[in-house]
Amino acid sequence: MLKIYGDSQSGNCYKIQLLASFLQLEHEWHHVDILAGDTKQSAFLSKNPNGKIPLLALPDNRYLTESNAILNYLAADTDLLPTDSFELAKVQQWQFFEQYSHEPYIAVARFIAKYLGLPKDRLAEYESKHHSGYKALSVMETQLTATPYLIGKQLTTADISLYAYTHVAHEGGFQLADYPAILAWLERIQGQPNYITMNSIN
Amino acid sequence: MLKIYGDSQSGNCYKIQLLASFLQLEHEWHHVDILAGDTKQSAFLSKNPNGKIPLLALPDNRYLTESNAILNYLAADTDLLPTDSFELAKVQQWQFFEQYSHEPYIAVARFIAKYLGLPKDRLAEYESKHHSGYKALSVMETQLTATPYLIGKQLTTADISLYAYTHVAHEGGFQLADYPAILAWLERIQGQPNYITMNSIN
Repeated sequence: MLKIYGDSQSGNCYKIQLLASFLQLEHEWHHVDILAGDTKQSAFLSKNPNGKIPLLALPDNRYLTESNAILNYLAADTDLLPTDSFELAKVQQWQFFEQYSHEPYIAVARFIAKYLGLPKDRLAEYESKHHSGYKALSVMETQLTATPYLIGKQLTTADISLYAYTHVAHEGGFQLADYPAILAWLERIQGQPNYITMNSIN
Repeated sequence: MLKIYGDSQSGNCYKIQLLASFLQLEHEWHHVDILAGDTKQSAFLSKNPNGKIPLLALPDNRYLTESNAILNYLAADTDLLPTDSFELAKVQQWQFFEQYSHEPYIAVARFIAKYLGLPKDRLAEYESKHHSGYKALSVMETQLTATPYLIGKQLTTADISLYAYTHVAHEGGFQLADYPAILAWLERIQGQPNYITMNSIN
């Protein structure tokens, strides 16, 4: 059976949980506690030398890391991953955008506020995340004003990738009131069959 | 004809030039000067609201951004992109690793040193990039000790993605002497038919 190693409090891990629920994929969930240092132990590093979760283990003990690569692997041959080559490239475009222009600002601001309790020595860093985070939200708003989902009319793994940290952006101090297309898109995803909330699996 | 918008001094743009040369892809190269602010002009932002290069324009004026998404789109149905679903996922794994765990340290250290001239007010930031940059190089070294290319025996777009900034890491102050498998891999790529150096197109 597929094994997924992750921490439910991580948006990158929640992406995999949400996809697995949408697709009703049978799997074993293995809890890994990042803050307790589980990903720095040699048993984990032998599976992923980069020391990050989520991690997918196939039944033959091959390993795959990077949340968005795992999403696309698990969604192959389903409605959540387009087969048209340009649409497939657009899915990846939004996922690279997520990892480079969105997650380092929105997820990190949330981490500093929610998990570290916004310590004074990281206040300047926290505030510096907001400018670029809002820029990423504006790029999403432009697309979602034109199409109901990021690639067009169909929900894809790109939406799952961006949903994970966007729907909890308020925990990092982001206000979404000025982003009506994003708010409507969040509701559209929450209305999907088999939607599950973050932290519903432990 | 395909149009590629980019700046030859950017490693992310060089990725596309190198792939285009390996595949002998006919295309028009459009120079965009980042430091002069070309990507912040409305003519460019209408093509990519995220204001980043490289950018691919198809003959029907559809646009694709994010260097690694462009690589995989252009390499579809060639030997540079595996068709096996797990190998394809591994290509993406390494590309997400590149954008999240490698580029923000190695490329940014190089940018601060080479293009900004290592100003005093960014010295602490420059030095802080080295710890994580060396960690990324160690992850690559582990893989390249086991296999000649990142996915195995074949050169793929994942190698092009990681090659772009690794081969100029010394310009960001990184010493590669302790990474013999990386050094051998750099030479292996430089020995490919139709290899071109960075800054060979303007």
